[in-house]
Amino acid sequence: MDAFVYGKRQPLPADFDEFLTVSGTAIVSIDLHQGHLADTPDCPCPAPRARDVVAGVNRFHAAARAFGVPVIHVKSVLRRNGSDDINGIKSAWRFVFPLYVGSIPNSDQHAIEGSRWTQFVTEVAPSDHIVETKKRLSAFYPTDLDFLLRNMGVKRLVLNGCMTDCCILNSAFDGSNLGYRIAVAQDLVRGTNPEMEDAALKMISLHIGLVVESSDLIDEWRRQIALAKGPDARARSVARSR
Amino acid sequence: MDAFVYGKRQPLPADFDEFLTVSGTAIVSIDLHQGHLADTPDCPCPAPRARDVVAGVNRFHAAARAFGVPVIHVKSVLRRNGSDDINGIKSAWRFVFPLYVGSIPNSDQHAIEGSRWTQFVTEVAPSDHIVETKKRLSAFYPTDLDFLLRNMGVKRLVLNGCMTDCCILNSAFDGSNLGYRIAVAQDLVRGTNPEMEDAALKMISLHIGLVVESSDLIDEWRRQIALAKGPDARARSVARSR
Amino acid sequence: MDAFVYGKRQPLPADFDEFLTVSGTAIVSIDLHQGHLADTPDCPCPAPRARDVVAGVNRFHAAARAFGVPVIHVKSVLRRNGSDDINGIKSAWRFVFPLYVGSIPNSDQHAIEGSRWTQFVTEVAPSDHIVETKKRLSAFYPTDLDFLLRNMGVKRLVLNGCMTDCCILNSAFDGSNLGYRIAVAQDLVRGTNPEMEDAALKMISLHIGLVVESSDLIDEWRRQIALAKGPDARARSVARSR
Amino acid sequence: MDAFVYGKRQPLPADFDEFLTVSGTAIVSIDLHQGHLADTPDCPCPAPRARDVVAGVNRFHAAARAFGVPVIHVKSVLRRNGSDDINGIKSAWRFVFPLYVGSIPNSDQHAIEGSRWTQFVTEVAPSDHIVETKKRLSAFYPTDLDFLLRNMGVKRLVLNGCMTDCCILNSAFDGSNLGYRIAVAQDLVRGTNPEMEDAALKMISLHIGLVVESSDLIDEWRRQIALAKGPDARARSVARSR
Repeated sequence: MDAFVYGKRQPLPADFDEFLTVSGTAIVSIDLHQGHLADTPDCPCPAPRARDVVAGVNRFHAAARAFGVPVIHVKSVLRRNGSDDINGIKSAWRFVFPLYVGSIPNSDQHAIEGSRWTQFVTEVAPSDHIVETKKRLSAFYPTDLDFLLRNMGVKRLVLNGCMTDCCILNSAFDGSNLGYRIAVAQDLVRGTNPEMEDAALKMISLHIGLVVESSDLIDEWRRQIALAKGPDARARSVARSR
Repeated sequence: MDAFVYGKRQPLPADFDEFLTVSGTAIVSIDLHQGHLADTPDCPCPAPRARDVVAGVNRFHAAARAFGVPVIHVKSVLRRNGSDDINGIKSAWRFVFPLYVGSIPNSDQHAIEGSRWTQFVTEVAPSDHIVETKKRLSAFYPTDLDFLLRNMGVKRLVLNGCMTDCCILNSAFDGSNLGYRIAVAQDLVRGTNPEMEDAALKMISLHIGLVVESSDLIDEWRRQIALAKGPDARARSVARSR
Repeated sequence: MDAFVYGKRQPLPADFDEFLTVSGTAIVSIDLHQGHLADTPDCPCPAPRARDVVAGVNRFHAAARAFGVPVIHVKSVLRRNGSDDINGIKSAWRFVFPLYVGSIPNSDQHAIEGSRWTQFVTEVAPSDHIVETKKRLSAFYPTDLDFLLRNMGVKRLVLNGCMTDCCILNSAFDGSNLGYRIAVAQDLVRGTNPEMEDAALKMISLHIGLVVESSDLIDEWRRQIALAKGPDARARSVARSR
Repeated sequence: MDAFVYGKRQPLPADFDEFLTVSGTAIVSIDLHQGHLADTPDCPCPAPRARDVVAGVNRFHAAARAFGVPVIHVKSVLRRNGSDDINGIKSAWRFVFPLYVGSIPNSDQHAIEGSRWTQFVTEVAPSDHIVETKKRLSAFYPTDLDFLLRNMGVKRLVLNGCMTDCCILNSAFDGSNLGYRIAVAQDLVRGTNPEMEDAALKMISLHIGLVVESSDLIDEWRRQIALAKGPDARARSVARSR
C-alpha cells in the first residue's frame, strides 16, 4: 500500500495496520452539500473545486458499503434565527474569508436549516449515518460524531469532502487527537485552491495520518477481505473450531 | 492596523474590534519547552526553527503583562508509565512524522512528566498561568484551557509558539470553533519548514483569524490604552458621571 | 425571593443576582415528549408523574417569552438503526432501571428519530430553540446546547422537565460545572417517585443552585423589568444620555 | 453477585458481565484528600463522614492492584491566583452550600495548588495514576480522565470517594453517558449525610449502574481470575493453540 508523504508517493512500511485494517473503519464525508457545491450565484459559501469529487465520492462510498464499511455524512446546519452564528458569536470565516475572496453575497443563508443549502449532493444510502449539528469547521464540534463513533466501535476514519484546508484538516486534527487513526483520500477532497490543498495534505501526512488514493484503499480492503475469506482463512478457522 | 491576508500585508477594515480590543485578550504560548527546543542530540521532538522566536516571545509577553494582558503557557506533559501515549493509543505523529524526517532517537521521552523535556525555555512570570495536560496537538484537548478562559472572561486569544503547522494551527482551529477570536503573531511562531509555516499562516488568514506582526499588536494595544486614559476619555467619563 | 434549601422554603440573602437576573437567562426544558408522557401501554420510557407539569410548563414558558427569556426545548433522539444505543454501547438505564420497575415492553422504541416518541407534548413557539441530539441523561451530551448557550450569551439557566433524579439532576450538574448559574423550578419537574424527586432537589440546593417556585421566579423577573422601565430607570436613563 | 437495587440487596441476573468483568476495569477514587478529610478547624471543605472509608479504600485498592486493576486517583486542584474559581466564575457550592451548613471559614483555600489541601489521605502506589485538574464536581471536567481511560482501553469503572451526593454522583452520570459501565462501592463512598448518601445510591441503582459492596466485587474478580487460570482454562487454551 502506498501513501503520499509530504506529497511524494511511496510504499508504507509494515506497521500501519492500525490505519488500514478494514474492520473498525468508518468513512466520514464532510459538507458535500448544495451550500458549498451549487453552481449558481446564490450559493452561500462556494467551494467550486469540490464539485469535481462528487462522482468519485459516490463510487468510493458504494465500494465501502459493499465491504461493510459504514458511511457517515456530516453537514453544517444552522438555526434559522441566527442564534448560533450570525446573531451570536459569528463564525470567524465570515470576517476573514472575504478579505481574500471579496464579499460573498448570500453568505447569511449558509447552512440554514430547512433550506436547500443543507441538501447533500452526494448519494445517501438508507444504511448511512447522518450527523448534522456541525456549526463551525470541525466535524466533531459541537456534534455527536465522537459519541456515535464510540458507540459503533470505530477505530479508524477515512475522510473525504471539502474543504481540505479547513473542515477536512480541522476534523483530521480533532479525530486524531481523540485517538482515531486517520486517512484522507486525496483524490476525494478539495480546498480553496491547489496551493492550500497541497499544503493541507502535506500537514496531514506529517502530523496526523495517511494521505492515500481512494482506489488504493479499496484495493487494500479487498485484499484483506479476500484473505479473511480465502482457503488459508478457512484452514485457520477450521483449526480453531476443533 | 495591518494583517497578513494570504501572506500579503494589508490594512484591516474597521470591523475587527472583536479581534483587536486589548480588554478581554489573553496570550496562549504553546509548547516552547526543552522537549522541542533543546539543541542536543537527545531532544525528543526537535522543532529547531522555534528557537528563533524565544527572545521575541519573551519581549512580547513582557509588554503584554505591562498592559494587563494575561499570559498562559501551555505545554505537553505525558505520564511516566506511557499509559496516555506510547503504551496506549500512540500519538499519530509517532507513526507518520518519521516517514518524512527519519527516525527520532529519543522520542519516547517526549514530554515525560518530571523530566527536563517539560521545562519552559521562555520566561514564566509569577502572574502567568500554566496549562499542562496537553497530550496531543491541540492546546484545548484534553486540557482545562477552555475552562480557564471562560472563568477569566477571555474573548480573544493571541497565539505564539510551535509548531505553526500542527499545534498552533490545531489550537487556532479549536479556539475559533469555541468562539474565541484568534490572532497569530507570525513573527512568534515557527513550523516544520518555511513552506509549512507559510501555508499554515495562509490557512489561518483565510478561515480562522488574523495573522499579525507582534509589534503591530503591541502598538495597537498601546494606542487603545492611551485613548482610554487620555483627555478625551476623561471628558467622556466626566460627562457620563454627571 | 424565596428558595428551597434542603426542602425548606426560606428567603435568599442578597448575593444571588447571578442566579436571578432576568437578562442573560434562558429556560431549558428537558424531555417533555410523548416517549415519556404518553398514557398508553406502548410508551417506551414512561415518566407518568411528569404529565402533571405540562400545563404549568406551558404557562411558565409563555410568561418567560413575554419577558424576552428564550426557551430551549431539549429532547432525546436516537438513530433508527440503533447504532447510538441498542446496537452499540447500550444506555445504562436499559440494564438497571428494569431491576426496579420490571421489564419495559416497548423500550427499544425510545426516542427513535421520526417516531411519535420524539414529539413534544409541551407547546413550542416559533421563537423557541430546539436541541435534539441528547442521547443519554445529560442535556449537554452529546448535544450542541453549550455551544448554543455560549453563542446566545446566556449566563443563567432555569431547568424544567423530567426526570428530576436523572436528566434534570445530571443536566444541573453539568450546566453548573460549565459555569452557568442554575435554578430548578421545583413545581415544574417530576421524578421516578416523590422520594427521589425530593432528594434530587435537596442535592441541587446543596451543591448546584437554587430550587425555586416558578411563580416566584416570574414575580422576581417582573419586578426587575418594572424597575428597569420605571420612573427611576427613566430618570437614570435621561441623566445618562445628557 | 449481589447488588443494591433501590437500597435492597438482591442477586444480579446473568447479563451484567459488561459491568463486572475484571479485565478492562479501572478504579476511580475521587477527592480523598486533606481538603475534605482533615480533622482540623481550617479544613476548607469538610466532608467528615468520608474519613470512615479511608482504610477500606486502601484495602480495596491493594486487592485491585494485585488483580492488575489500575487505580486512578482524581483530585481537585485550583490555581493559586483564583482565576479558575473565586476570582472567576465561582463554584456554585460556594453560594449554596453555606445556606445549609453555615459559613465555611477557610473555604477560599479549598484545593489550592501546592497547599496541603491537595494531599491525598489514601495511599498512592507508584503504579497508580493521578488526575489533578478536577475543578468542579465531575471527575471528567475539565480533566484528562476520559482521554486517559480511552488510551488505557478501559470499559468499566468502579467509583469510590466523596461525596456520594455530589462528586461521586456527577462522575457516575458523566462516566455512564460516555459509555463506561459504572459500579459504585457503597461501603467506600460517603456523602453530606446518611439521607443524601442513601438517595444518591438509589439514583445510581435506578439510572446509571451497579451499587455493590466492595468485598463482593473483590470476590467476583477473584472468581473470574481463578477461572481464567484454572484447569478448564488451561484445557481451552491448549485446544486453541493446536
